[in-house]
This record gives sequence, C-alpha cells and structure tokens, in this order.
Amino acid sequence: MKVAEWIGILAGIFTTIAAMPQIIKVWKSKKVDDVSWGMFCILILGVFLWTVYGIIKEDYPIIITNGISTILNSIMLALIIKYRK
Amino acid sequence: MKVAEWIGILAGIFTTIAAMPQIIKVWKSKKVDDVSWGMFCILILGVFLWTVYGIIKEDYPIIITNGISTILNSIMLALIIKYRK
Repeated sequence: MKVAEWIGILAGIFTTIAAMPQIIKVWKSKKVDDVSWGMFCILILGVFLWTVYGIIKEDYPIIITNGISTILNSIMLALIIKYRK
Repeated sequence: MKVAEWIGILAGIFTTIAAMPQIIKVWKSKKVDDVSWGMFCILILGVFLWTVYGIIKEDYPIIITNGISTILNSIMLALIIKYRK
C-alpha cells in the first residue's frame, strides 16, 4: 500500500475516535456547561452527510469512518442534553 | 454538478466550521473545565493528516476543508490551554 493510503487510514482513525476523550470526560464528570452543543449538531450533520456521500460513491473507508463518527458524536450530543442544567 | 458533489461540499463545509460554536462559547465564557483537550489534540492530528493526504493526492477540496479545520481546532486548543485552571 502507498504512503498516502497509510496516511489516509491514520487520518480516518484519528478523526473517527476524536470524540472519545470528550465522551469519557463527560461520562465521569456529568458536567457539560462549557461544552458547545452547537458544535456537535454541526459535526453530526457534517459526518452524516459524508456517510451519505460515501454510500453514493460506494467508498467503504468514508462510510465506515464517518458512520462511526456520526454514532460517537450523537452519543456526545445525548450526554449534553442529559447533563445540561 | 452531480448530487454527490453537492453533498460532499455541504459535508465539507459543516465539518470544517463545526469548531466555531465551541470557540465562540469559550471566547465569551473564558471557561473550559468541561471541554476535553484530548479530543482537540486527536482531532488536530487527524485533520492535519487529511491535509497531508490531500496534498499528496493533489485533492484541493480535501486540502482546503481539512486545512481550515486544522487552524480552527488549533485555535480551540490554544484557548483551552489559555483558560485551563
């Protein structure tokens, strides 16, 4: 596999799992006052559209990375709604 | 332009500007206690690698969207470092 493919895979993994530390932090602290729900709404919309784009193009790396991102960022948005005062 | 291209452009715009609401919220509140710096470190690494991927592939939409994301998420990380207690 070429260098570009390895960089693409690494990039996809990092951008996919990026929400994890924030989910874990909120899961422990139960505090979301400083976290922007707007960011996660826009992010979910974006990665969902990337998933649709991947489905149309039948591009499995794009479908998988953005599909997982849609789920993780939706979990984060649910936590914000749950713990928001 | 085909539907897929429009969806890709919209997806790119949303994922690029997603950090803006969080930057504005922190800029106003000066509070970052609940925000995960880990998320932004991983996100910056990911979108930076996507930018490198785009440069190798000479894919300008990928370079532009992820280049802007790298800048915006770096600004957010700087704000976290600045306002962290």
